[in-house]
Amino acid sequence: MTIDATGRRSQPELAYPEAYLRRLADDLAAKFDGVFNRETVERYVLESYTALLRTAKVKAHLTTRTIHFATERLTALAQAKGALPVIWPEVLFVCEQNAGRSQMAAVLTEHLSSGRVHVRSAGSMPAHDLNPAVVEVMTEVGLDMSREFPKPLTDDVVQAADVVVTMGCGDACPIYPGKRYQNWELADPQDQPIEAVRAIRNEVEQHVRELLTSLEVTPA
Amino acid sequence: MTIDATGRRSQPELAYPEAYLRRLADDLAAKFDGVFNRETVERYVLESYTALLRTAKVKAHLTTRTIHFATERLTALAQAKGALPVIWPEVLFVCEQNAGRSQMAAVLTEHLSSGRVHVRSAGSMPAHDLNPAVVEVMTEVGLDMSREFPKPLTDDVVQAADVVVTMGCGDACPIYPGKRYQNWELADPQDQPIEAVRAIRNEVEQHVRELLTSLEVTPA
Repeated sequence: MTIDATGRRSQPELAYPEAYLRRLADDLAAKFDGVFNRETVERYVLESYTALLRTAKVKAHLTTRTIHFATERLTALAQAKGALPVIWPEVLFVCEQNAGRSQMAAVLTEHLSSGRVHVRSAGSMPAHDLNPAVVEVMTEVGLDMSREFPKPLTDDVVQAADVVVTMGCGDACPIYPGKRYQNWELADPQDQPIEAVRAIRNEVEQHVRELLTSLEVTPA
Repeated sequence: MTIDATGRRSQPELAYPEAYLRRLADDLAAKFDGVFNRETVERYVLESYTALLRTAKVKAHLTTRTIHFATERLTALAQAKGALPVIWPEVLFVCEQNAGRSQMAAVLTEHLSSGRVHVRSAGSMPAHDLNPAVVEVMTEVGLDMSREFPKPLTDDVVQAADVVVTMGCGDACPIYPGKRYQNWELADPQDQPIEAVRAIRNEVEQHVRELLTSLEVTPA
């Protein structure tokens, strides 16, 4: 058989930045030295890149997002292994697309807890981008969503969570022993007018305040 | 904070089979002894389970599918590392849902090559299940799809592929150096009447025959 790379050379913008990702893996391996071996870290970096690439429409932020996503996942796994200290309660929000409800809940929890809760969010079938109406109603209350992006649910972040909150992902959420689970009934903001999305945001905030109280964190 | 597992105990059918998966990781670690360390294998097994769980509607086959998916991914990675021999050309088919076109292409290639080509398939946004019309038109020509299922595209199977064939996944496919790429223009069988799906199957078969010839494999 003959192998040629003609197709690739004619589409340079699609090139897989393998050398860059391996250098990133070197940096992360140094950061997690003594916790994970180089092989595990490299697997996480390449897998995280491919997982985000699957649903990314715009490639511009992919490498930056890969750094964040891979670092969060490795940190979660290190916490779950007991290799990193857990200082604050760890809360994971899961919805289907990780484009609206779980993103609002994560940012509101971080804000209202003044950082005394560590949050992560994920989707069972992540969307391409955040819901623009969700970004708008969060901006209205002074909360910046520009660094957030839809991410697939991975087992590491579930393992690290003290509390898992699901919202409309059905039973597509793995249940780990020893976790505290909540399911919030919330309307889906997708294709809703801005007033409806605003009402969902307010509902999410109410749920978040109750959650914080149950975690003995006084909401700001 | 207080942690309780009440939610979990009241939903035993959702329990995450952690002990079972760790035993499976032990078995696979023995199989890949000298190629991958235990940590890598365990990560693959737990990640593969969670990735399939994200889109699985029926949980009945999940552990069996996890064995297949994790084994295929580890085998692919071992081949890409040069730790396992590559006996036949490796072809990867990628479409958006891994529910129709890429599944037909994989099964037709395996059949028409009499096993002299090794095939894998994946989706950029995998569906819950195979398209029933696709299963039907494949059964008509005597091909069994009962063991196939939609799987997310992962970097390991791309790395192992000699040829990557995309069909309608846009630019959501990573391009690796040294690969041979093809893109097949095929109508999407989703929501099409059975006659249209049959016509797509025949088109896929024509493409597969040409691919096999280019790989110097005489179609059966």
